[in-house]
Amino acid sequence: MSINLSHIQDAYERIKPQIHRTPIMRSREINSLLGCELYFKAENLQKVGAFKARGGCNAVFSMDTESLAKGVITHSSGNHGAALAWAAALRGANCTVVMPENAPQVKKQAVRGYGAKVIECIPTMADRVAAVAEEIQATGSTLVHPYDNEQIIAGQGTVALEALEQLGSFPDIIITPVGSGGLLAGTAIAAHAIAQNSGKTISVIGAEPRGASDAWQGFTSGQRVENQVPKTIADGLRSTLGISNFSIITEQVNDIVLASEQAIVEAMRLVWMRMKIVIEPSAAVAVAAVMENREIFSGKRVAIILSGGNVDLDALPW
Amino acid sequence: MSINLSHIQDAYERIKPQIHRTPIMRSREINSLLGCELYFKAENLQKVGAFKARGGCNAVFSMDTESLAKGVITHSSGNHGAALAWAAALRGANCTVVMPENAPQVKKQAVRGYGAKVIECIPTMADRVAAVAEEIQATGSTLVHPYDNEQIIAGQGTVALEALEQLGSFPDIIITPVGSGGLLAGTAIAAHAIAQNSGKTISVIGAEPRGASDAWQGFTSGQRVENQVPKTIADGLRSTLGISNFSIITEQVNDIVLASEQAIVEAMRLVWMRMKIVIEPSAAVAVAAVMENREIFSGKRVAIILSGGNVDLDALPW
Repeated sequence: MSINLSHIQDAYERIKPQIHRTPIMRSREINSLLGCELYFKAENLQKVGAFKARGGCNAVFSMDTESLAKGVITHSSGNHGAALAWAAALRGANCTVVMPENAPQVKKQAVRGYGAKVIECIPTMADRVAAVAEEIQATGSTLVHPYDNEQIIAGQGTVALEALEQLGSFPDIIITPVGSGGLLAGTAIAAHAIAQNSGKTISVIGAEPRGASDAWQGFTSGQRVENQVPKTIADGLRSTLGISNFSIITEQVNDIVLASEQAIVEAMRLVWMRMKIVIEPSAAVAVAAVMENREIFSGKRVAIILSGGNVDLDALPW
Repeated sequence: MSINLSHIQDAYERIKPQIHRTPIMRSREINSLLGCELYFKAENLQKVGAFKARGGCNAVFSMDTESLAKGVITHSSGNHGAALAWAAALRGANCTVVMPENAPQVKKQAVRGYGAKVIECIPTMADRVAAVAEEIQATGSTLVHPYDNEQIIAGQGTVALEALEQLGSFPDIIITPVGSGGLLAGTAIAAHAIAQNSGKTISVIGAEPRGASDAWQGFTSGQRVENQVPKTIADGLRSTLGISNFSIITEQVNDIVLASEQAIVEAMRLVWMRMKIVIEPSAAVAVAAVMENREIFSGKRVAIILSGGNVDLDALPW
């Protein structure tokens, strides 16, 4: 699998009519608190409340009518499932999402709300995969893997493409949360290629919870971690880094930095309070990582991808 | 006092460099739920988290240097106080805000955060006024009344001016929350004059909590209500309708509609969930009023002013 800027540009042309061009927001208070100039790309305001609308839409809109008639299927802790359900509905296709039984209610409801079928499973990757295989055998539906999929990675890369277009001038750093790695991989491919075309450089950094640091461990050791037991409030980042994502990230990402659970909650609250937008814990991880790694970001212009805003309002962490 | 469109246009030129041009947001889900086409003017994303930045800024930037040197003072349950403090700081002036002791902590903190002095008082209008008079005698500072003030009304009217500019084509209705009435009065003046200049008509509607319905009572009876005891979660709408605001509203507003406390909380939650933005209860009142008065809004294009986003995250109503 080899994805380059032109795949991301093609994806952008394909999905543009369906998605929101989300705003870049700023906060003087947060800048002065964190000692750098932050440009928040608000993908929490994206369709389905997360950047995953981009990948899901690109995958579904790349499919031919015949395959699509048999439906699509995926496994997801939440946002990718909602994204695929939403995109499938746009093309009138059936969609099934296998979800771990401990996924937030609000995310299960969202998937059902877009008309997809939810199959609940035990929250391990093995169970997810088994449930998907069974359903595919029964229906002949097409698996749209949540991250190990070229169309998904290319779709997620359009966030950086769009953000750099909006910013006009180059930031020093672009930081994104990293869970399964589709967003970070797509961002690295897009940002480095666009910078290079203008004779510039940009640092692409991933942000991960300390309690689910498989990407950081793999990035540091060169060895992909396969069996982590995640312990983090950031439910979107509990999954393990995908195989192809791991190789793209190892080659193209400049650094991965960590955030504590305490900082994640503090960052989430800070953004709600100061910016008046709802972000989910996974999105707050990138803000928390800036908080806890000041030496890297101090005085820099930093584009930060707020990945999503799907939060259970009845179970807030404060 | 006679305010017309040109005062509002002048105010807009005066404050434009200081304020945000807030976005107009949409939600397909909320439209289909409420059966009309809503255009949300997101003043919760305004400076100080509320439209009151506009009035406060217009008042302070209209003052001469000599008066300003003695400082400004106001009484406010919150957002107007923060707005005045913020605007005074922009011009390096002292600011004092008399606040009822039961105002949300987050609002008191905000006022102090902009460098203003807070004087707490018993939460009645008489006590507020007495505390202000005492301070003026001591300092010679200028009262910027929270609503019975031409500059304030003209400043608040810029929300509608800007929204109609952004929308391009005319909505059927524009609805705003009504507390002391500055926003509703300014909106009525701006919207009717702009519509008339284009040979159109527009219906301007105020939304008020049932538990603080002095504006509705006054509008219905023609007699301004002076001593209401407000009982509503919408802390920004607990104040009584101003005298000049009452006369503008009686003459120029098409209707005032009411919302129950239950609908206010439901509407607040709905906007947080679906639109991923933080709005305060007072802003939710307009959405709640649309929910509970469907016959008025059904099938219409409705511009709705989300007045602010200053909420105590530790005391959410669900």
